[in-house]
Amino acid sequence: MVSRLIEKIQKTKAPICVGLDPMLSYIPEHVTKKAYDEFGETLEGAAQAIWLFNKEIIDATADLIPSVKPQIAMYEQFGIEGLKAYDKTVKYCQQKGLIVIGDVKRGDIGSTSTAYATGHIGKVQVGSNVFAGFDTEYITVNPYLGTDGVKPFVDVCNEYDRGIFVLVKTSNPSSGEFQDRLIDGKPLYELVAEKVVEWGEASMDGAYSNVGAVVGATYPEMSRVLRKLMPKTYFLVPGYGAQGGTAEDLKYCFNEDGLGAVVNSSRGIIAAYKKEPYVKFGAEHFGEASRQAVIDMITDINSVL
Amino acid sequence: MVSRLIEKIQKTKAPICVGLDPMLSYIPEHVTKKAYDEFGETLEGAAQAIWLFNKEIIDATADLIPSVKPQIAMYEQFGIEGLKAYDKTVKYCQQKGLIVIGDVKRGDIGSTSTAYATGHIGKVQVGSNVFAGFDTEYITVNPYLGTDGVKPFVDVCNEYDRGIFVLVKTSNPSSGEFQDRLIDGKPLYELVAEKVVEWGEASMDGAYSNVGAVVGATYPEMSRVLRKLMPKTYFLVPGYGAQGGTAEDLKYCFNEDGLGAVVNSSRGIIAAYKKEPYVKFGAEHFGEASRQAVIDMITDINSVL
Repeated sequence: MVSRLIEKIQKTKAPICVGLDPMLSYIPEHVTKKAYDEFGETLEGAAQAIWLFNKEIIDATADLIPSVKPQIAMYEQFGIEGLKAYDKTVKYCQQKGLIVIGDVKRGDIGSTSTAYATGHIGKVQVGSNVFAGFDTEYITVNPYLGTDGVKPFVDVCNEYDRGIFVLVKTSNPSSGEFQDRLIDGKPLYELVAEKVVEWGEASMDGAYSNVGAVVGATYPEMSRVLRKLMPKTYFLVPGYGAQGGTAEDLKYCFNEDGLGAVVNSSRGIIAAYKKEPYVKFGAEHFGEASRQAVIDMITDINSVL
Repeated sequence: MVSRLIEKIQKTKAPICVGLDPMLSYIPEHVTKKAYDEFGETLEGAAQAIWLFNKEIIDATADLIPSVKPQIAMYEQFGIEGLKAYDKTVKYCQQKGLIVIGDVKRGDIGSTSTAYATGHIGKVQVGSNVFAGFDTEYITVNPYLGTDGVKPFVDVCNEYDRGIFVLVKTSNPSSGEFQDRLIDGKPLYELVAEKVVEWGEASMDGAYSNVGAVVGATYPEMSRVLRKLMPKTYFLVPGYGAQGGTAEDLKYCFNEDGLGAVVNSSRGIIAAYKKEPYVKFGAEHFGEASRQAVIDMITDINSVL
């Protein structure tokens, strides 16, 4: 799978993904109104508003980008109806040729991780038939339970040519609380990184592994160390833009070949129309604002590569 | 919420929860046949089989137990249809007066954790209306992202009188890979435990906190230490039965008042009819086998309290 991601990145010259994390507060009033007129102020109405919002952003940006990263929590908060909007969004992005990174941060003990992997990147057998549940190209995985919680995801990556990004060093302010603590002189995130490398060796796809790592843009010094520790690991880099990470902070996430990382921006792209310098597009043209924000993000990141 | 859990435990004299983690392979053929006859060998058919299976087990055991713990991964593997069966199961258990612990192991950065909390134990605003998504009494939470990943769950516990169990020391074989590593002379799980105590102080409900901890039955020596470190924290204890934990292993999870822990068994209860001494019930009467397994589990656990 990682070779497909790299191919798309090289074709678009854009090592980025757009975070489809719709909050109702990001969605322009004319969109929610349209959805509520049809379905009422209900969970279905909210799901429809999210879908209409996503569709316009995808239509406006799909030709520029290799991948999207829907954050499933933003859908899950609306229960089943929200998850239907997630499913619809995933399928629509795939029709547009985009690689979908389901940001689900799942992780459990063995057989349960297998079920999550099956549901998100694998296939499930029902009688004599086989079905795919959410069917994304990639998902994110939480490593707290250790190898037997992560290995089932790697097995499914191999079986269906899919990928995962394992949380190593997250972008949030308190990520250091556990992740930075020293164990035999090394921070926990480095131990996790070493395991990610080990797990990744079982799923190589060209020069890189299908087992990637989440490395926050907000801690550039740590990215530099992690880049060296994990030369064949693709990084999914959250924290650019709204969370404070700059292009300069990102450069350590990339290898010398200009590959090795895909940088996410969510709010900065999907709610671009709400902030300078994109306010001029107006809420009516939020898709165009997102398109311009994507173009600017690509230019910004390429300036340091 | 923890006071409601304790009340139910005292009433049933059963500090247990039944893990509703249905694998298709656990479901007797006459049940899957009935479901497939109606919906075909489809995701809907699988979801119906799960629902019929759960319902019979719930009907056979609800009067004996305080709580159930559906493992969402087992539903999520069938996509939207599976999650509908999860939702239906949750609501049915609540109608029967059971406390539902959604084993979802969610956890993310701040605003995303808020969305998960909203979707599983809170309520969401849509226009001028308010809805609940999955609406369980408790969920499990992964702490790898630190305080700002957990705090939003605690806030929602306070707002809606709900509870969480934070992963501290999990029951799986490789849980020690990261969780047991020493930091300033103390294993990581102890550091997490200290944080759980701190987070829990913000959501006390009588003698115990709404912020509980997942502590595996498979590591009794560690339970003993954790029990002392976290006197006001309720433990959710997986690993009894099929994973190898015995009643003797469990006694350290309880306080001297006989409270402090709720022990889960999944396979040992829901697939009881497949193993000695319950084979005699036959697959046709799998619910009665589960009932007998629950009675035996309660006797076994109470023997060490």
